[in-house]
Parts: sequence; C-alpha cells; structure tokens
Amino acid sequence: MERRKVLFQCDYNEGAHPRVMERLMETNLEQTPGYGEDAYCERAASLIREACRDTSLAVHFLVGGTQTNMTVIDAALRSHQGVVSAASGHINVHETGAVESLGHKVLAVPHKDGKLTAAQVEALCEAHRQDASFEHMVQPKMVYISNPTEYGTLYGRREIEDLHAACEKNGLYLFLDGARLGYGLAACDNELDLPFLAKHCDVFYIGGTKVGALFGEAVVISNEELKKDFRYFIKQKGGMLAKGRLLGVQFAALFEDGLYMEISRHAIRLADRLREAFAEAGYPLLVENRTNQIFPIMPDSVLERLAVDYGYCYQERVDESHSAVRFCTSWATKEEDVERLIADIRA
Amino acid sequence: MERRKVLFQCDYNEGAHPRVMERLMETNLEQTPGYGEDAYCERAASLIREACRDTSLAVHFLVGGTQTNMTVIDAALRSHQGVVSAASGHINVHETGAVESLGHKVLAVPHKDGKLTAAQVEALCEAHRQDASFEHMVQPKMVYISNPTEYGTLYGRREIEDLHAACEKNGLYLFLDGARLGYGLAACDNELDLPFLAKHCDVFYIGGTKVGALFGEAVVISNEELKKDFRYFIKQKGGMLAKGRLLGVQFAALFEDGLYMEISRHAIRLADRLREAFAEAGYPLLVENRTNQIFPIMPDSVLERLAVDYGYCYQERVDESHSAVRFCTSWATKEEDVERLIADIRA
Amino acid sequence: MERRKVLFQCDYNEGAHPRVMERLMETNLEQTPGYGEDAYCERAASLIREACRDTSLAVHFLVGGTQTNMTVIDAALRSHQGVVSAASGHINVHETGAVESLGHKVLAVPHKDGKLTAAQVEALCEAHRQDASFEHMVQPKMVYISNPTEYGTLYGRREIEDLHAACEKNGLYLFLDGARLGYGLAACDNELDLPFLAKHCDVFYIGGTKVGALFGEAVVISNEELKKDFRYFIKQKGGMLAKGRLLGVQFAALFEDGLYMEISRHAIRLADRLREAFAEAGYPLLVENRTNQIFPIMPDSVLERLAVDYGYCYQERVDESHSAVRFCTSWATKEEDVERLIADIRA
Amino acid sequence: MERRKVLFQCDYNEGAHPRVMERLMETNLEQTPGYGEDAYCERAASLIREACRDTSLAVHFLVGGTQTNMTVIDAALRSHQGVVSAASGHINVHETGAVESLGHKVLAVPHKDGKLTAAQVEALCEAHRQDASFEHMVQPKMVYISNPTEYGTLYGRREIEDLHAACEKNGLYLFLDGARLGYGLAACDNELDLPFLAKHCDVFYIGGTKVGALFGEAVVISNEELKKDFRYFIKQKGGMLAKGRLLGVQFAALFEDGLYMEISRHAIRLADRLREAFAEAGYPLLVENRTNQIFPIMPDSVLERLAVDYGYCYQERVDESHSAVRFCTSWATKEEDVERLIADIRA
Repeated sequence: MERRKVLFQCDYNEGAHPRVMERLMETNLEQTPGYGEDAYCERAASLIREACRDTSLAVHFLVGGTQTNMTVIDAALRSHQGVVSAASGHINVHETGAVESLGHKVLAVPHKDGKLTAAQVEALCEAHRQDASFEHMVQPKMVYISNPTEYGTLYGRREIEDLHAACEKNGLYLFLDGARLGYGLAACDNELDLPFLAKHCDVFYIGGTKVGALFGEAVVISNEELKKDFRYFIKQKGGMLAKGRLLGVQFAALFEDGLYMEISRHAIRLADRLREAFAEAGYPLLVENRTNQIFPIMPDSVLERLAVDYGYCYQERVDESHSAVRFCTSWATKEEDVERLIADIRA
Repeated sequence: MERRKVLFQCDYNEGAHPRVMERLMETNLEQTPGYGEDAYCERAASLIREACRDTSLAVHFLVGGTQTNMTVIDAALRSHQGVVSAASGHINVHETGAVESLGHKVLAVPHKDGKLTAAQVEALCEAHRQDASFEHMVQPKMVYISNPTEYGTLYGRREIEDLHAACEKNGLYLFLDGARLGYGLAACDNELDLPFLAKHCDVFYIGGTKVGALFGEAVVISNEELKKDFRYFIKQKGGMLAKGRLLGVQFAALFEDGLYMEISRHAIRLADRLREAFAEAGYPLLVENRTNQIFPIMPDSVLERLAVDYGYCYQERVDESHSAVRFCTSWATKEEDVERLIADIRA
Repeated sequence: MERRKVLFQCDYNEGAHPRVMERLMETNLEQTPGYGEDAYCERAASLIREACRDTSLAVHFLVGGTQTNMTVIDAALRSHQGVVSAASGHINVHETGAVESLGHKVLAVPHKDGKLTAAQVEALCEAHRQDASFEHMVQPKMVYISNPTEYGTLYGRREIEDLHAACEKNGLYLFLDGARLGYGLAACDNELDLPFLAKHCDVFYIGGTKVGALFGEAVVISNEELKKDFRYFIKQKGGMLAKGRLLGVQFAALFEDGLYMEISRHAIRLADRLREAFAEAGYPLLVENRTNQIFPIMPDSVLERLAVDYGYCYQERVDESHSAVRFCTSWATKEEDVERLIADIRA
Repeated sequence: MERRKVLFQCDYNEGAHPRVMERLMETNLEQTPGYGEDAYCERAASLIREACRDTSLAVHFLVGGTQTNMTVIDAALRSHQGVVSAASGHINVHETGAVESLGHKVLAVPHKDGKLTAAQVEALCEAHRQDASFEHMVQPKMVYISNPTEYGTLYGRREIEDLHAACEKNGLYLFLDGARLGYGLAACDNELDLPFLAKHCDVFYIGGTKVGALFGEAVVISNEELKKDFRYFIKQKGGMLAKGRLLGVQFAALFEDGLYMEISRHAIRLADRLREAFAEAGYPLLVENRTNQIFPIMPDSVLERLAVDYGYCYQERVDESHSAVRFCTSWATKEEDVERLIADIRA
C-alpha cells in the first residue's frame, strides 16, 4: 500500500482551522457592508486591541504578507526614504522587489541568524548623518524586522527595547513582520507578548495565513502618523478585500477563546518533538531556534530517501555530501505524521 | 416586529455560494503546494480554457479586482505608456490611483454610458502620431474596458470586434475587466461568450468576487507577450495567495457544472423583475441596461422612506427633488426580498 | 537672395542673454564646490529672497521645467495623494506622464483659457470628502497652476488669493509653475509681483530657460513642510547639476540689475506690436492675453505662405479653412524680425 | 600673502574647456529647434558614431549622470526586473535611490576594487533560474558597470568580452557608465576603445560633465530594443533639455579635433605625476589604478596640514592614525598646482 506523502515544507499547506471554517459557514449568507467596515471586523479589531491592552490602536486586516509589507512600508516612507532590513529579510529577498516597485530602497544590512541589532541601526543612521553627501543617499526612515525571523529565531525583550530606542532616537519607525507571530509567542524561550509589541513597535502585524486562517494578516498601528489615511493605502495596493468581513470573522474566531495561542502551542510542541529527534539522530541544526521551523543538516543520501514520503524545503548546501533543509510544523500538523517522520529519521 | 433590512447596494454583501463553500470545506485539511501551483488551480484553469475553447490560454487566479487591474496593466506597459479608459472606468475613479501608483497614466476619455468606441481609440492613436511633440506625451498602449461597465451596459459583438481591430492596427492591447462578467453573459441582450472574448481580447478576467465566490478573479491571457513572466507580476503586486488552492477550488466549483452561469441568470432574472417594477411605478432609469445593476431616478422623499428597509447606493443628483440610485441583485439575492421591495415600490 | 527664416514657434530658440554668457565666461575657470553649494548659488538665492522680500524662503535651482515640476510634486505628495491641474496643464499633457511615473495621479479638471478657479478646488475637495468611498479615490493634496498659463493668460490678485484660501482651508499646497513668469510679470495687465507670489504660494518657480538663461528654474519654497529634505528629491530626480554654480551664476546675472524684468518687458513690447498687427489685419485671437504668446486664427492659405519665412506653432483647427497657431516673442526676439513679420502679415 | 586653495576633491570644480565655451559663445544667438532636434546634436551624434565606427548607433545627449543612469535603466527594465551592480556602484550608493524610485531593484553584489566579473553575473543568473521560488525574486535583466569604476579601476578587453558573453547568454543587457570614460581611455594601462565598447555594450555613455563640458553625457545605444522609444524616456525623466543644442555644440567641440582625448590625457599625465609623488613620499594607495582618481593612505596629521591649501575627498579610515583620501585631476587641473602640491607632499 502506498503511503500518503506528508508535507512539512511550509506552514500553509492546509486551509483553515475547523473552528475558523465553522464561523465562515455560519455567517456565509449574512449581509454586511464591504471593505472591512462591518461588525465582524470591528469585533476582531476590538479583541486584538484588548489582547494588546491598548484601546487607541488602529487595527486593519489585509489578505497576505507581501501585500501587508508593501502597504505598511509605502504608507510610512516618502520617496527619498528607505527601509532598513536584514539582508535575509523577506522584503529584500522573496517579494519580487515589491518595496522597490513602489519606489523605496531596501537598505539591506548583514545579519546574524536573520536578526538586526540596535547597534546596526544606530551605526547606519550615524554614518548617514556624517556623510558629506548624505543627500545623495537614501535616508533611513523605517526598520523592518520579523519575529520569528526567516531562520525561526526570536528577539528578546531587551533587543526590542534597544531597537525601539535606536529608532526613536533617530526618527525611524519600527515595523515588525509577525507573519509567524503565534509560533514565536508560543516558543519556550519567548520573552515577548502583544502588549509589549504594541508599546515598542510603531506598527506590527499578527499573521493569520500561517496560523489557522485561510488567509489574513492583522496590522496593528500605534504611531499616530501611520494611522492617518491608512485605508487609502490598503485600497491603492489592492489589499482592500471586497468581502472584508471574511477577515473579521476569521480573526474574531482566532482571538475569541485563545484559539490563536492554543494552535500555535500545538505547532511548537510538535516542532520540539521533531527537533529532539533530529538531535538524537545526530543531525546538527543550521540555526538554533525553538519555533516551528527546524533546519537540520543531513546527508544528501538520507534526504533523498526521506523525500519519497515527506516534503521539506531545501535551504542550502553545507558541504559536498550534506545539506541544510527546512521542516515546518503548523497548527494543522498531525501528531501521527510527526511520529511517523520521527520513526523514519531514527531508521 | 422590526423588519430585516435588505442590502441591495452592491453584489458582494454575502459570502460564497453554498456549493463553493461546500468544496472549500471538503478540501480544507488536504495538503497542497502553495502559490497556485496545486491541482485545484490546474483543474480550474483547464475548465476555463475549455469554456473558452482554447487550450493555449494562460489562466491565473487573483484575489480581487483592483489587484487584478493593476497587475495586468503593469505587466503590459513600459514606463512611457498609458492605458486608455473611459473617464468613468473603475481604474480611473475608484482604485485610489493604483495604476498611477505603479507609474502609468490612465488616458481618460469621455464615454457614453461607460463605454468606449473603436473610433475614440483610433482618433487618440492618430492624434498621438500626428502630434509634433508626441514624445512629450504618454504613448497609448492598452485599452481598458469593462463588460458590464460601471453603468451596467454591455458591448455588442461588433463593438468588441471593432475595438479589437483598432487595437491591433495601432499596436495596443485590449483588456476587458469582467468583474461582473457573469451578469453580462446572462443578460437577455448579451451577444458575447467566452470563446469570443478569448479571441478578441489580449487579456480579460472572469469575476468571482461578485459572482458566487468568496473572492477571486480568473485572468485569461491570449497574447503571448503578456503571458511571459506574468507570475512575477502577481507576486510583486501582492496578489499571489499563499493558499492559492482556495482560488482553484472556488473556480473549479463555479465552472464544473455550469454553476457560474446558473447563478448569474438568477441575478438577472431578479433584476429584470425589479426593473419592470420601477417602470410600472413610473420611475425612469438613468441608464438603460439589462444586467444586475439598476439605476432608477426617484423622488428623494421616496428614497428616504425606502432607506429604512433597504440598502441602495447613491449615484447622483438629477434635479432638486430627484436622485438616481443604484440597486444591485446578485447570485445571493432572495426572491422574497425582491418581492418585498417591489411591493414597497408600488406602495 | 534667400531670406533668413525667423523662428517664432517658442521662446527657447536661442542660447542665453549676452550678459548671462559674459558672467559664465568670466567665472568659467574658477573652482567651486559642486551640487549648488557654492557662493554663486548662495548669492543668487539671496537676490531672489530679496526680490521676494522674505529672507525665510528656501531657494533651489534646477535645470528644466519638467524636472522641476516632477521634483516639487513628488516632494509634496504621499502615494495616495494627487495634484489638481487644469486639463490643459503642462504636467497633464506634455511631460510624458512624468508625475504619474513617480506614482501620483494628476487630477485633471476642465479649464477656462488654461486657468483653474478656487471654486473648482473647493468643489473637488468637498466632493471627495462627501463621497462614501472617498478612500477608494485619490486624495487631492496639491493644486498646480501656471502663470502665464499654456494659453498665455494670467491670474489676477484676487484669483490667487482665493486659490490660496481654498488650498489653505482644505489642506492643499498651492504650486505655481512660472516657467514664463517674467513674461507674466511684464504684461500690461499683470497684477502680481514676487512678494505676493511668495506669500500666497507654498512653492513656485521663476523660469530662466525661457527668460534669458541657457537653462534653469529657480524654485522658491515658503512652506516649511516642503523645505524639509528638498535636496534629496532634487538629487533623486536627477536634477542636481554637478556644476551647480552654472545656475547660480546665471540667476545672479538675471537678478542683479533688474535684467530679468528688463528682458521680459522687451518680449512683451514686441508681442504687443505683433498682436496689434494681427488685429489690424483682421485676424481674431483664439485666446485673449497680453503676454508673449499670441494665438491668431488665420486662413490656412496665409499660414502656408508665412511658413516659408517664419516658424510658428500649430495649435488647432478652427474650421475647414482656418487654424489657430502660436507665435512667441522672447528676450531674444529682434525688433527687425518682428517688423518684417508685421509687414508680411499686412501684405 | 594668502595662498589660493586648490581643489582636488573632484573633477567637476570648473566650468568647461575654453574651446567648448568658445563654441557656445559663437552659436549663442543662433535660432535652432529645441529638444535635441537641431543640427548641432545631429553633427555631434555623427562624430560619435564615427568615433565608434558604427553608423547604426543611436546617440542621445542628456544633462547629467544620475539622470542618464535612471533613464537608461528605466528604459531597459520591466517592473519585475532588476539591474545587477557592484555594491559600490554609483546607482547603488550615491543617487538617493533614483533607480528604486522608478520601481527597480538594484541587485548589489560584492566587488573587487569596484569591478564585477562575468562569473558573478553567471552565478547570479544561474541561482535565479535554479531557485524553486524564482518568481518571488527580482529577475536580473541588466548589468551595470562603470569604467573607470568608483575606485578609478579599469576593465580589460577580456573582462568586457566575458561580461558581454555572460549577458548575452543569460538575456541581460550590458550597460557601461562612462561618466569618466575619457580618463579611462587615456590611462596608460587602458585596453579599450570606443568601437570595442559599442560592440560589446548594449548601451554606454561618454561623460562630458567631468571631461571638458559644462555638463552632458552622450548615450550610445547599439541594442535595437533599447533604441525604441528612448526619447519618451528622456522626456519623462526630465532629461530633455529645452535648448538641446547646448549639448550638441559641446559634444561636437569635444569630438571634432580629438579634444576629448587630448584633455583626458592631460588629466592622466598629471595624475601619474601625483601618483609618483605619493609613492616617493612613501604613501601607499588604497586601490591601484592609473586613471585620474588617486587614493593615497596618509597620516591624519599630514592630511590636516594639506587641508589648509588643498581640497581632497575623505574616503575611509584605515587605522587609528591613517585615512585614505581621494585626489582627482581633470582636464582643468593646472600643472603648477600639481607641482605645488607635490612640493608640499615632499615637505
């Protein structure tokens, strides 16, 4: 009998969490106004403001990550300004130049495991100010970080506080891409929470696409300058969903009874199981992290055998006979699939 | 007892057709690759190619209309080229300058009931060529039309043939926005069909958002130049849905058993009922059409009374005491709601 | 003997006024810093601030008109904002979509002889605010006018005051394109002066290219928001001349001894002579004005004969046998050439 | 008596070569059509085509370097495509993001002394093709190099041939920025000439601003695709000089009697003198080259003393007490000034 192939290459292989689908079904034939101006969006926004413990926050719902990044960044920058990002940042590598297509340079800087430091931001701004021909260079105005990063690593409280301080001192906005935020907040070494993020970021978003929703990212804005006219930008970038209530219904489902964190913890528990199995089997990791992305370094021959039954993502060649790959768990990952994979790793 | 308010202001007040939802539920926990490279998208594309009777067509699925317009137009134009549109065109009025935000001028021309003519295109191109300073002006390179138009009007076969010929002669692309295409094809005075459109347009799209889907527009490309690298543009404009199969599943449902046309006809039948009622009550129409948008001119006092129980869309002031408004039907409109409205119009 | 053909089609057929050339020659081998940070630019800026009677003005020198328009407008607008212009405005017609190429929509409105009114601005802003889907439309943020206009017409004091008030009330910037400003200020029916413009415009420019310089436009900014970071925009748009002192030297020459107005008056005097001659010969004007552009309506047969000896600019067909054309005078127009043309008109 | 301070920090401190000025004076009051459609531009283009030994080349004249770079690059790329550049490239560092402001990503790669290699281009293209998510990344479509580079280094024949071959193989355009081209062609170790460049580059330009002109860059296009509609792009980017003949007159002067190379050789001879002096005084160079830019590493104390009498450009800190700086010679550098500087270096 042929075994079902299980996909671990990313965290968006399935649809939505059943409770989310249930709410979409229940509300399907209700009539609501369009473009996010319905009661479900208002309810979801309220729940998120509550979770962030700040009633003054602006909350908007967009469909996907690239769209959200380009909308937020374009809303923040004037033409001569750029956004600082780790060279590995999603906006710098995997969005087909969406930020540049809107006229803004990504100021890419070297990174350690996908992370930026306050010292880097400070140095960049200082260098810009000191340069005699500073007007011939793009002015840094926003810092883009993601948490978890592309490498599944997390920022600590102190690191975020320092970035926040460096940004404030130099007149930059701090923007946190939380496409996988749930898997960061649920990690055993996490130090952050939503109120902390709302306080230290000018804008951040809570990813739904990878954490239980069919699609959707909830943008949370604390900075007054960025709140102004934000819906114009959503519309102009093509991100204003006609049936906006679909986003409201989903985020309300995710934030009503703690579902968002509950399913995030599920993914993390299985990731930790898997990480343990790789360690036991003697496979080192390319990057240490405790989130839902695992980067084992394995012999190519073993990877070839695993590829028959499992999907994973090729990351990079490590030496002539070894490669680093990526396995992801998610809210939808089945315990039994992880156990089967673990058994096969051991074998 | 309070009466339920019924919304007629647009055709995207509800979720999706139950058969579409059913297919989303059935497939919800399946694992598929992301970004539209799954079997459901391939299946839906096949069905659409079949419906268009041309297996060489490229078919792509995007989330919404503004996004689709900006992606197609940006993929077609170089920086010095513009897109010709009726001044009333959606891209010229209601997309917050999305086309311009990508660097392209909308060359707006006067219109009759939302429609462009081949003669206008011809004249514009001729004027451009004749102008001594033609290089100081934006070069027309694409013609954008919608069918039905913003006013619910339709193009005839001959009109499209002439536009196609004018475009071909002058080296322009012809792009048809079919956000409400089903409601055009189902109209009693419709002369077009999908194979005809595929043959005469360089690119067009079949709207799902307004015709039975939660969201989604199916872009059909016949011109080889426009096919090239199109997915880069989808990604760059933020339109590449991570769980792309959601679009494939929906469009497959709509095109498998003729559902798309079946539900379009439902909307048209109810619109025709309503149109009749307005006529009987002596309310003239701002624009004559047989699609799902009706533009009666009514006394403000009557409109005020109707507004308690019905949503409609304000269109324009006609005289001191009369306004034109818009009522829309859709796949989701209930027969009983239309009957109730008709009764109230009569009253 | 063949007669020399005299060009009247525009006001930039020659090089620069001899006194300007003299100053360029004298300073040619001096060494100065680049990019407009030299003593000549500072001197010219001072002279202009003095002429405007406001020492707080920012003054920048750019090379040409299109460049200046796109730089000022891009510096003023965020992505979702547009610039209001008469449909005949240079930015809307003759700059190959430069404004749109930077992402901004030109909100074209109908015009009377090239002019906009405060009432139009007011109505546009009011309509935007009242529209239920205002966020789906480009937000008006700047008003662009030119004085003289494309039709050589002028704004009166009251008209500018009203535009200023309408802009201020609605949060818009007022930007005046003065590519031909000298020929406006020197006209017999002119009501404006530089201090008045500096007080009522957020930004305007004093054209040099058409008024005695080899090239160059002096941008005068009174609004603090627009002053900020302006040099970044000049550089980004390619307008920061390496040898910026060439602009300073020229504008200093034009503003030191009243040369700018002196040569403007010369052009106007000859234009008035010419206008008189057209009137005497019974040729009506397409547009009435008293600046350096004249738009006579003449029989095509006469135009054909004149074309042997004179250059003029074709404007538009008036009827089957008559066309409107444009004759321009400038600082460089020779008295004898005008007399010769007048004699030929009479003949 | 105070000594005159001599500026060596760049090669655009003076106006134009006297023979260029002479021609501008002679032609000053002639009447010509505008926008580069005059006989002087045609004459200059002819001379350049002749010098390149290819009569099929398109030649256009623009005002400055940033403008030229952005115009050429925007004319070459569609929205999803990027331009490969050394990280030190002028377009990546010193043009305030002009390329990005037009929507294109600069694909910056590490460099050796400012140069790119064919192997880097090949590797980049290969990596793009191999990447499973290549459509999520900017497509490389043009290679930008400069000769001399920012570090005054030169490409050899073989290096250009290889870059040309790599570009051709991968469907990329090769674009050479020749803002200082004369100083490259005149260097003692130069291997290139104009016919070779015209044959191996799809487009390149011959800098005038830094080599004897008041301003101006002559763009030479050999690729048919890039020739098409190029003047639209010049106009749209604000680079179409109204009195275009100023560019024609200047380039004709530079290319009529070998003036361009004659004055370039002058600069190189003086640079070689200076280089020798630095070597004799025991100051190593940051980068070895034989063009007009010299990068000595000197003690900060010595630099401080020199700064009283000489302008130079600060490059970078080398160690606690030493810095690298830049001295430039040019067509305008005086023998006596170089001798004085040499004496002071020796002292």
